[in-house]
Formats: sequence, C-alpha cells, structure tokens
Amino acid sequence: MSFLSDLGRDDELVGVVEAVICDLAPHARVLHLGHGVRPFDVRGGSLALARAVSYVPEGVILATVDPGVGTARRAIAVEVAGGAGILVGPDNGLLAPAVAVVGGAERAVELRDPSFHLDAPGATFAARDVFAPVAAHLCNGVDLAEFGPMVDPATLMPGLVPLPRAEADGIHAEVLWVDRFGNVQLNITVDDLPADADVLAVSVGDDRRAVYRVATFGDLGAGQLGLVVDSQGLLALVADRRSAAAELALDVGDGVVVHDGADGAPPVATTVVLGRSGPPDGQ
Amino acid sequence: MSFLSDLGRDDELVGVVEAVICDLAPHARVLHLGHGVRPFDVRGGSLALARAVSYVPEGVILATVDPGVGTARRAIAVEVAGGAGILVGPDNGLLAPAVAVVGGAERAVELRDPSFHLDAPGATFAARDVFAPVAAHLCNGVDLAEFGPMVDPATLMPGLVPLPRAEADGIHAEVLWVDRFGNVQLNITVDDLPADADVLAVSVGDDRRAVYRVATFGDLGAGQLGLVVDSQGLLALVADRRSAAAELALDVGDGVVVHDGADGAPPVATTVVLGRSGPPDGQ
Amino acid sequence: MSFLSDLGRDDELVGVVEAVICDLAPHARVLHLGHGVRPFDVRGGSLALARAVSYVPEGVILATVDPGVGTARRAIAVEVAGGAGILVGPDNGLLAPAVAVVGGAERAVELRDPSFHLDAPGATFAARDVFAPVAAHLCNGVDLAEFGPMVDPATLMPGLVPLPRAEADGIHAEVLWVDRFGNVQLNITVDDLPADADVLAVSVGDDRRAVYRVATFGDLGAGQLGLVVDSQGLLALVADRRSAAAELALDVGDGVVVHDGADGAPPVATTVVLGRSGPPDGQ
Repeated sequence: MSFLSDLGRDDELVGVVEAVICDLAPHARVLHLGHGVRPFDVRGGSLALARAVSYVPEGVILATVDPGVGTARRAIAVEVAGGAGILVGPDNGLLAPAVAVVGGAERAVELRDPSFHLDAPGATFAARDVFAPVAAHLCNGVDLAEFGPMVDPATLMPGLVPLPRAEADGIHAEVLWVDRFGNVQLNITVDDLPADADVLAVSVGDDRRAVYRVATFGDLGAGQLGLVVDSQGLLALVADRRSAAAELALDVGDGVVVHDGADGAPPVATTVVLGRSGPPDGQ
Repeated sequence: MSFLSDLGRDDELVGVVEAVICDLAPHARVLHLGHGVRPFDVRGGSLALARAVSYVPEGVILATVDPGVGTARRAIAVEVAGGAGILVGPDNGLLAPAVAVVGGAERAVELRDPSFHLDAPGATFAARDVFAPVAAHLCNGVDLAEFGPMVDPATLMPGLVPLPRAEADGIHAEVLWVDRFGNVQLNITVDDLPADADVLAVSVGDDRRAVYRVATFGDLGAGQLGLVVDSQGLLALVADRRSAAAELALDVGDGVVVHDGADGAPPVATTVVLGRSGPPDGQ
Repeated sequence: MSFLSDLGRDDELVGVVEAVICDLAPHARVLHLGHGVRPFDVRGGSLALARAVSYVPEGVILATVDPGVGTARRAIAVEVAGGAGILVGPDNGLLAPAVAVVGGAERAVELRDPSFHLDAPGATFAARDVFAPVAAHLCNGVDLAEFGPMVDPATLMPGLVPLPRAEADGIHAEVLWVDRFGNVQLNITVDDLPADADVLAVSVGDDRRAVYRVATFGDLGAGQLGLVVDSQGLLALVADRRSAAAELALDVGDGVVVHDGADGAPPVATTVVLGRSGPPDGQ
C-alpha cells in the first residue's frame, strides 16, 4: 500500500501509522509517497497524490491531510479502476484529483463502523485511529461494503484545480507546485502556447521577464529563465542549477501571465537578463 | 524492528544503520519511527519513544539519541513485557519512559561483548557500530545474556518527566511537545481541570488568553485558542489551521499556567481575543 | 537495492521512484540512504555515497544528483567488486568516489536502450523514467550489457575530492561534510598530524582557536573545540552538544588550517577559550 500525508517525518506520527498497519496486516508493504505536504494544505496534498497515482502499485492508497479531523467531514474509502485501487482518507477534496486521474470513483463507503477503528483517548489522530486500521483491513481483503454505509460517489467533495484564462495580454496561469529545486509548475500545457515561439515572456506582478522554451535545464544559459515540459506534461518555469521560484518570488497559488513573445514586450527590467536577446546556450 | 533517533534523514546515517541491520538480519523489517529528534535532545527522544511504544510491533526497538557516545555511559538492551519487546540504546534516560509505559524493565544487559559490534576507526557512531549489529543479532534470536554482563534494572538511568504543580493561581504545567502543526502538548490531563469549565485561561509569562475546551480543532472559531484531549490522552493547546505554539511563542520545556476560568480573569490583553466571551463556533 | 538522491522527501518524488521499482521488481527491497543531498550538489552526493557504500548490502545502488538531466551527459551503470555491486546514475562524477572505495569500475554501460525506460512527457525526471526502471531490471537479473553500449570505464567522469596541502604554517585542509550535529569533517587523517600533540590550533580566516585531540565528544569541556577521528577515519572538528560548524562559521568547501600546536600560537582571540590551556575535562 501507498501512504501520503502532512504528518511530517520528524516526529513519530508516520511511524505510528505504519506500525498500526504492520500490526494488523503484517504482509503489507508500505510505500511512502511523502509526508511533507504543508500542514493543513489539502490542495497541495491532492495535487501531489494526483501526480503520483499513475505510478503507485495496485492496492490501497492512504492519504491524510485532514484539518477537519473529528468534525462532521466524512472519512471515506473510494474504489477505482475496477477494484485495482482503493483510496482511503478524509472527504475534503484530498482524494478527488487522484480519483479523477485514474478514471473516477466506482464505489465509495463512509468509514462509520467503529469495530474497524482503534480506541483512542482523543479525536485528533484519525490517521492512526481510523484510516490506518481500515487500510490494513482492506489490505487483508475485507470488502469496502463492510466498513460502513455506501455513499453516492457524486456526493464526494470535489477537488479544486484552477483553470488558466486566455486574456488579451496573454495566458493567466497559476502556480500549482514549487518543487525542491525551485521549479515552478503552472496549470498550462504546451497546447496553450503558440507553436512557433522559442522566446516568450512572463509577468509576475510588475516584473516582466523573457523565458526560453527549452527541453531541459541544461539548455539554459546563466541568468536565463526557461519554460519546459515537466515530468507531468505541464509547463514549468525553470532555471539551470538555480531556483526559478526564488528568482521570481513565486509560491504555490500565485498568478503568472505568459505573453505571446518577447518581441514588442516592454523593456526587460531585471538586470540579469538585460541584453540576452539571442538564443540560449546549447539550444 | 522499530528505529527512532536524532540522526536526521538528510544524510546517509539512518540508511547506513539500516544497511548494517539488513546485512546481518536480512529478514528483519525496519519500521522508522522518526529521526528528527532535535540533536542531543534525550528528553525529546524519550517522550517520542514513549508516545509510540504502545503501537509498535513486538520485537526489537532501537533508539539512539546519544550525546555521550564513546564515554562511560553504558550501552544497554532492556527486555520488557515478558520478552515481547527489547529496547536497545544508550543508558542515558532515553529508553526509560517507554520502558515504564510497557510495564518496566525485566532484564537488562550492558552491551560489552565486542564480538557483536563492528570494527570502526572512531568511537563516534555507536548507532552503526554497536546498537545496529546488536539489534540485528537480537532479531536473529540471540539471547540478551549473550551481549555482555546483566545489569540490575534498578541501576538504569531514569527518564525525567516533569510533573505539574497545583498552586493558588492555577495549574503550573510544562510543554512536553510541540508537533508539526503547532499543537502544544502539556503534562496535564483532563482530570487536572475543573469538570464544569468550558472556558479557561492560560498564561504564558504576562500574556493571558482565554482557551475553550473543545473536542477537536474544527470546533474553534477564527482567532480562538482551544484545549483538547490529544491522541495521547494529554491536554494540548491548539488552534484551527494555525499554530498555537507560534501564537503563544511556546516551545518544549516552557511553562504554562492554566487558570480555573476566564471569568474574573484580568482583561484579555491580546486583541485577537478581545470580545470573544461567547462559546466558540460549532460548540 | 539502495537509493540516494537530492530529491528530498517532502514531495512524492522519492516515493514515485520507489513505486516504479516496486512495480517492475516487486521483490526488491529499497533501502533509502538519504535524499537530502543539497539540490544540484554532485560532490556532496558523491561523498555521502562513498561514506555509505561499504555498508550497503550487495546488489544495485541507485544514485541521482543530476543537474544535467536530459542533456548529453551519459546515464550509466557501473559494475564493481566482481559483480557484487552495480551502481546506476548519471555520469557526472556522482558515482566515482564510491566506485573507487569498492575497488574501481569493472564494466560500465551507457543506458541508451529505450525499451528499458518509461515513456514520459518531459525529459526532466530521469530518476523515474530511466534510472528506476533500469535499476529494477538489474534487480531482476538482466545483464548489464543489455541496457546499451558498453563504455570504457576509463572514460567515466572522475569525482573531485580535494587534497590537503602541507605548508609552512600548517596543514591546509578543506571541509568535506558538515553533519546534522555540526561536526566538521576535514579531508585529513590522524597521519597528517604530529603524533605527540594533544593540543593543536585551527585557523578559519583570521579566527584562530585551540583544539584538543579527543576520542569523543564527551571528553571536551564546555566551550572547547576538539579534533576526533570520526566514523570514517577522517578528522573532524567537534564540540560537546554544540555545533562546531556554527561556532566556526564553517560550511562544506571552506578552508581550514591546522597548526602544529597551540604553544607559540598567537593569543587565542575568542573569549570562550581564553584561559583554557590545561587538558580538557575527562581526558
């Protein structure tokens, strides 16, 4: 089974969840997809899960980013892909983009039967007390219908993925993800760009910069910014051995406008780029 | 087997310890309980281990937070629970609270037989050179008595867990743990509070704030602080999707006074809370 | 198999690489050597791998710190130790120090056969799309020669490990590694020091400090700096329960001069050390 969360790895929380699974389903292998989702960041977690879901082995996927733990938000398990996968987590939109990637929810259940949960003094750690034991029992072959009342998949909380807007001054995109290297994934694909443009421009607030369409980081010269097709097929703002996010002061959720070309653009304001009108090195 | 340390996961240290175990006991499964204990923080590590120990599978538990590595501090293994568990680590108090949670030490040994250790150029990495090979041999079924002289469990270094004090102005508590979400675990339980109080107050230095007794984070309104029974059965200061620790500038070891009620309390000094005398939303 | 990278563990990147391996070679065990190598830091990654390589189990070692991903840099697999180990990664010097530690490259192959790679939209994630599937197929027993053209091991990119220089004022060393505890590993061994000196001095820029040769951290008194033989057999600047790196403002790659003795040295400038001319406590 696979496991993604915002629990962090500094404390024992992830280990305790794995221990519960290991205790109830000793033969289950736990593949950690990452536990560094920002605390409470349901959208960030949902996008990480959607990026990973096509690669994880068949079976159970446990995901928890759960600021509403203990409230009326439902705890659910969702079957996908003809039973090849079951996602377990809170019904707060966290699972929705991943479920969509693999073809949509086929059956869903609310995890209300307490006989599959652990007794606990407080209601603050559902990952340990509800989701982990349910995931373990699923690994052991217990059917979805055993865990509580079935729910109509149409009633599950949808995920919120922002759409780009084509406007007169260019494509208004949004930052979906900044990875460890400072690459800035946008919510646009190569189909959103003019086919023949090797050099474009991006605006972040009043800062307008030339960006070069390149295949990879090493195609960029020192000081240049690039736009690559990333490992998800989305466009990302990148630099060579530097953080594009730091250079453009961009974070998740920020807006970026991609303009149709650098020609006719206002003078480039950032000294690093001044005079770099030729093609980048290595192109 | 389970493994907790302050070695961090950025470098190869934890991986090398696991490699040594894997080499000597190929069938052992290593469950990582967390390696982000603050460097040298024996008490922090001992509390994390005590929080986790009831959940880990039977078998060996390796724990190292070992600032005295290579000195006269003893390296030990401690058998608990009728042989169901063996804790391995330095005799500096790290293991003591966890040992107490599972019923106390039954047998203990000092790890003095070098034939179970790895040769090493220096004496700075006992986790790799002493504790990991001993843990692996324990996983392979070697008896505790083989590793060196038995020691009287009564001579083991105790852990230091602070006790709260009831005084005229309220309960003087101490912060045991600040988790990744900024929840502030105190060394008091619900039995330390008056049964009928829905609203209390906490003082941190000169800062006095109202706190609402709630079951979970989502029961709190914006700007409110709460007191929940946490996943260990202890009381924790919390907020909804914010860090209570950051808001109160609290860290592990700091003192907090919990007062019997918000009524009659000095005027609340923090503007965020002013005027919030009613019950919180969702209560 | 073992796995080291600069991918970090906050996002799903490492989990996705493991998922690809798990999918293609379900029986492979993945031992994580650490993924916190600084982004793009090939030398740092190469040294971490070299420190770990003697301890990892026989089999495949996957390592990726790959700023040149997608460019003309070769993707390679290198067989060592009579086939006991195969290292997989980019040909940018990352593998070279580890290969040297285990006796040098015996066979090497360039990973050019795309039938062993994953299809991917972009060329930015070779760890997932090239190295992981190759590592999995190697775990499954596919021979090195299947993955592409054999290459002459002599043409592989060497690693860059700095050498110390003996000069009139002392040994000019370089910082190889600062670990989580602030221990500062230098590129010198005990053979580079005068055999009879219990007290030496180090200079970092204009800051000159006494350092005591000790066996372990606990041998140092408060405020003292020490020089220990570390777990790799190299000399490291250390302190007791403090970060020597923070105190000396040292980072990887910085230069340090080790002087033959504290006697006759210029007056110690740092007040913490003033007057501490005797042997350290516990010595």
